[in-house]
Amino acid sequence: MAKSKLISPHGSDTLKILLLEGKEREDELKRAETLPKVVMTTRETGDLIFMGIGGFTPLEGFMTEADWKGVCQDMKMTNGIFWPIPVTLSHDQKFDAGTDICLVSGETQEIMGTMKVSECYKIDKEFECKNVFTTTDPEHPGVKVVMEQKEWNLAGPVKVLSESYFPKEFAGIYQTPTESRKIFEEKGWKTIAALQLRNPMHRSHEYLAKIAIEVSDGLYIHQLVGKLKPGDIPADVRVNCIDTLVENFFDKDRVVTGGYPLDMRYAGPREGLLHAVFRQNFGCSHMIIGRDHAGVGNYYGPFDAQDVFFKLWDGALKCKMLPIDWTFWCYKCGGMASMKTCPHAKEDRLFLSGTALRKALSEAGDVPAEFSRPPVLALLREYYAGIKDEDKVEVKMHGHATGDAKVKKDK
Amino acid sequence: MAKSKLISPHGSDTLKILLLEGKEREDELKRAETLPKVVMTTRETGDLIFMGIGGFTPLEGFMTEADWKGVCQDMKMTNGIFWPIPVTLSHDQKFDAGTDICLVSGETQEIMGTMKVSECYKIDKEFECKNVFTTTDPEHPGVKVVMEQKEWNLAGPVKVLSESYFPKEFAGIYQTPTESRKIFEEKGWKTIAALQLRNPMHRSHEYLAKIAIEVSDGLYIHQLVGKLKPGDIPADVRVNCIDTLVENFFDKDRVVTGGYPLDMRYAGPREGLLHAVFRQNFGCSHMIIGRDHAGVGNYYGPFDAQDVFFKLWDGALKCKMLPIDWTFWCYKCGGMASMKTCPHAKEDRLFLSGTALRKALSEAGDVPAEFSRPPVLALLREYYAGIKDEDKVEVKMHGHATGDAKVKKDK
Repeated sequence: MAKSKLISPHGSDTLKILLLEGKEREDELKRAETLPKVVMTTRETGDLIFMGIGGFTPLEGFMTEADWKGVCQDMKMTNGIFWPIPVTLSHDQKFDAGTDICLVSGETQEIMGTMKVSECYKIDKEFECKNVFTTTDPEHPGVKVVMEQKEWNLAGPVKVLSESYFPKEFAGIYQTPTESRKIFEEKGWKTIAALQLRNPMHRSHEYLAKIAIEVSDGLYIHQLVGKLKPGDIPADVRVNCIDTLVENFFDKDRVVTGGYPLDMRYAGPREGLLHAVFRQNFGCSHMIIGRDHAGVGNYYGPFDAQDVFFKLWDGALKCKMLPIDWTFWCYKCGGMASMKTCPHAKEDRLFLSGTALRKALSEAGDVPAEFSRPPVLALLREYYAGIKDEDKVEVKMHGHATGDAKVKKDK
Repeated sequence: MAKSKLISPHGSDTLKILLLEGKEREDELKRAETLPKVVMTTRETGDLIFMGIGGFTPLEGFMTEADWKGVCQDMKMTNGIFWPIPVTLSHDQKFDAGTDICLVSGETQEIMGTMKVSECYKIDKEFECKNVFTTTDPEHPGVKVVMEQKEWNLAGPVKVLSESYFPKEFAGIYQTPTESRKIFEEKGWKTIAALQLRNPMHRSHEYLAKIAIEVSDGLYIHQLVGKLKPGDIPADVRVNCIDTLVENFFDKDRVVTGGYPLDMRYAGPREGLLHAVFRQNFGCSHMIIGRDHAGVGNYYGPFDAQDVFFKLWDGALKCKMLPIDWTFWCYKCGGMASMKTCPHAKEDRLFLSGTALRKALSEAGDVPAEFSRPPVLALLREYYAGIKDEDKVEVKMHGHATGDAKVKKDK
């Protein structure tokens, strides 16, 4: 019998939950009204909520300059704890150290929290982008967001006062680490593999998911419900597709689904690491890393996000990577396979470009059931039929953006 | 990059190789001719060879009474090292402690080694069978072998002088731990999953194997070339079937095949543990344990061999279990699946009893390609066509002996 003791949170024995409740929250809200207001982007708001619910354990607030620099350069904070991506708050003016400020969502105007400013520092955006994204190309959607930041980063410990619209708008899917851990414990699971999703699940994702289930106690399908780049499938459609797939093709006892409020950063390898860090906080022992994890365009090699895990120092991260090679349907194998398991030729395998898939879906063309399950395809067709032509920008098909057979070599 | 340092042998930093070579061997052979002869069964001969090549590291000879008792009762030798199954030599007479004896194969009459007798003890066969096989039923083929042993166990350190006919008769497949470790190191593998086989590989085994490859650096298909019970498929036919499957349906760079000279004991859970112990010696980090591993008849529950791994004390065994649930083809999934991944009904799944398979193969009946690959079936048909009717006893189909849907519960 596996013991049901879950993995501990990152860099801490317990979740660091910064969200206030009840009277404490009410009092802080009143106080917040009186403080100077700083308006946050959706990325910053998502990060703040995530600190609130313990998703970013052990962070206690937005990063100081020393932490920001350490994270950019060495993926290490001043306390020695591993952290792969800056969690920062920018503003167009400085505050004196010790100033209490009110943090407001730019999207909803809601008061989201307060922060005691400990320091303000100028952002070397080029430095950050080069280190985190390995590029300063403003076409990169993550770089664009960093470049559009204001001049100063404000650092300091935060108190969080709201989870915004996420619990209501994504009821049944939005989940906190406390909640996921409770579910895993009740199921008696110890080894849980997390599947990161920001797209509908096609058969390749189903294959990764099922391998993970075969070798673990259960699977956590964890989907982003924060902001994506234009052209990505919106969260409600995606949630629906995934629920339909799980309903029809998974043993529901082995799967837990959840949604999390962060924006995509498209930082490839660095974001893969961040995904593992916060999945550990959600109670997962393993993080599935497939082809082009959290990538965009051609900025990262297809398995850069796997390689970066192998280079971490001992003890950096408890949540282990579950690396899976490039997967596809092979007509000769008569099943799903990967570059590691299938010996057949390129022409025996089914690859579909994002462009071809989008075209087929919006024009009622044929998409093979070996690529995607018919009930999922039906939902996607419905979605594409309903959007205006000018919105039909390139759909990023994770893992199948091209038909090029870039084969991963032995590690 | 994964470091290519392999797992250390069981209970030792280096392989304990007891096989003599060159002049040392020649001299010991001459001396052996002059010593009192003890004739060994095939099981004992296989065990001796295995000690010779380091497969049973850290054993230095046949077990003393204290080791035998500790192994039967607590799976622990007097030195505290984990060991799940007795490795003993029986004889119908005692020798004085200190006597050197000559060990002869009863099958080939070849001198296989020498032993300095350290002690002789009466075998409590009931006690051994109850502990090791959980039964004293003489119909159990492993129990039968223990019960047929002579009265005394002779213990003592051995020198091994021959690998018998295995290197020649199974050229290209017979392999020593030194050889497999060298291959793994040259491939730069670190995580290697071992697949135990004593039957041809059907699609269920292929599925286990491919899951293992997806999550490891490579797979070691390790087949028994020692003695089986009547009705099991002989080694030469099986080797041929497996080679054909690997040739056609595996990436050969990810698979190493090897054969080992032990007899099957059919000890279910205890033998599953022994399989992990010696796979560690062969350099494997993981041992695949599927349904009814090393079982026979209905003596063991379908997942007893998995449960026993969870009950080991910390540090007992470095080689980890890779447990896989009951697998099958599911027509609704449109692929291979297991009880953990498939939500569909019994009637959507393909099960084939051993009797049905044997009947179909020997009478040119239809076996679905979803059960077994056509080139493998062709070889098996050929084999069955060539054997006499009276030899067609029940074929044990590992994992598919019945169509009963005994579902494994959560651990």
